[in-house]
Amino acid sequence: MSETVDEKIKVLEKKVEQLQNQRKDQLSMVIFSNDLDKILAALVIAVGAAAMDTEVKLFFTFWAISALRDKNKKTKGKDLRSKMFGAMLPHGISQLKLSKMNMEGMGKDMIKKIMKHKNISSPEELLTTAGELGVQIDICEMSMDLMGFKKEEMIDYPNLGYCGVATFLADAGESSIQLFI
Amino acid sequence: MSETVDEKIKVLEKKVEQLQNQRKDQLSMVIFSNDLDKILAALVIAVGAAAMDTEVKLFFTFWAISALRDKNKKTKGKDLRSKMFGAMLPHGISQLKLSKMNMEGMGKDMIKKIMKHKNISSPEELLTTAGELGVQIDICEMSMDLMGFKKEEMIDYPNLGYCGVATFLADAGESSIQLFI
Amino acid sequence: MSETVDEKIKVLEKKVEQLQNQRKDQLSMVIFSNDLDKILAALVIAVGAAAMDTEVKLFFTFWAISALRDKNKKTKGKDLRSKMFGAMLPHGISQLKLSKMNMEGMGKDMIKKIMKHKNISSPEELLTTAGELGVQIDICEMSMDLMGFKKEEMIDYPNLGYCGVATFLADAGESSIQLFI
Repeated sequence: MSETVDEKIKVLEKKVEQLQNQRKDQLSMVIFSNDLDKILAALVIAVGAAAMDTEVKLFFTFWAISALRDKNKKTKGKDLRSKMFGAMLPHGISQLKLSKMNMEGMGKDMIKKIMKHKNISSPEELLTTAGELGVQIDICEMSMDLMGFKKEEMIDYPNLGYCGVATFLADAGESSIQLFI
Repeated sequence: MSETVDEKIKVLEKKVEQLQNQRKDQLSMVIFSNDLDKILAALVIAVGAAAMDTEVKLFFTFWAISALRDKNKKTKGKDLRSKMFGAMLPHGISQLKLSKMNMEGMGKDMIKKIMKHKNISSPEELLTTAGELGVQIDICEMSMDLMGFKKEEMIDYPNLGYCGVATFLADAGESSIQLFI
Repeated sequence: MSETVDEKIKVLEKKVEQLQNQRKDQLSMVIFSNDLDKILAALVIAVGAAAMDTEVKLFFTFWAISALRDKNKKTKGKDLRSKMFGAMLPHGISQLKLSKMNMEGMGKDMIKKIMKHKNISSPEELLTTAGELGVQIDICEMSMDLMGFKKEEMIDYPNLGYCGVATFLADAGESSIQLFI
């Protein structure tokens, strides 16, 4: 009888451990958009979570990768299509546009001025803080290939990696919060 | 031996309770967009969940806050930038535009006529129903500041609050469903 | 004493089972957009998850439903509004546009050429693979009604159903990953 109880408890302990691993204090976000406003929202959420000691994993894919380019880094040996794509897409976070009311950059400048005036961190500062707080940024390898981006044109960021959708799914499946932005 | 069993059971009970609290029957949504179609989708999901007795918490941020303005309420003492921003953004849910096929309002009017014809609740009615069903709406304080909105220009809604990203993250971390719209 | 232990274990076993059912190895996505790039991202995530034996449930709503139309299927007996709407919206996945840099279809053609060149599956191929891997597609009934679409104009897909928001919420509440795209 007592053995049965012990066995049942062992089974329960294992299941409870699995459940705990399935829902870590972890935030996973797919960052798909390169709209300044959406990147700003994503970074505010990421930094807020990291400041509360939540593990944060950002999966940058498609347009969003252009927000991570370093405009001062040059690349060589790109084919024509990659060059064209590269030229048309923003070179880093400072070149992003608002999804609405951008008005040839006027709306964007207005938002940035208000943020400075109100002492709200700029997107560039938020990204730096994210790096300091250990926010992990993974860039979608397939999108890198599709956009013709090269690793050497990406920003210096302390926790930067490259992976596929399988890694994102594994991380997201364990996270207590998941968002697609 | 028996004591050990009791202790193990107590540990398990505590862990299971924590797990249950980590995944409440609760829906958390970040409402970021002020596109009529997205606000409509968010409200249909929110009202549907609340009707099934799920706790619903909506975190309105950035553009979406303009959907909660009351066009009949006037504010005083705004600075120039806040006035300009306020004038350019929609004054409440009735002034929102479609993200596609808005066609200077023609597409929007068409959608609204079809909804009426098909007896589908309008966004205004959905918002009222959400209030009656106890859907909580929290407005992002940082975005209020950024947009230059004042509390006195927001709609009368029974469960309206103001909070920061930390409150959203705490709520979302306990929710069984989380979406960013 | 031993009885009490058995009872406590039974209660725990039930609670653990409930917790396991609340977080299945399941991915739920609301597909709202009909932008080619977003549909592509959604399908890559869906196929990636299904390939890892995760249960995948896609809830197509609003604009996204137009991605599931079969351009070769004709419908009869539509009223004027439904005809107008139907004519203006894409007829299937091949007619979708990019959310950015579409440039009258040039950007879209460029992306498609690059994808072919890089051996990345096209959206059409991804949809076929999704069907083969058992990805479930549910179409929002209310949106069908709103857009004036008829079931007979939808593509032949092995696991296609029609449901309301309640079914989506029930599925999503049990899923380990949920996204709104």
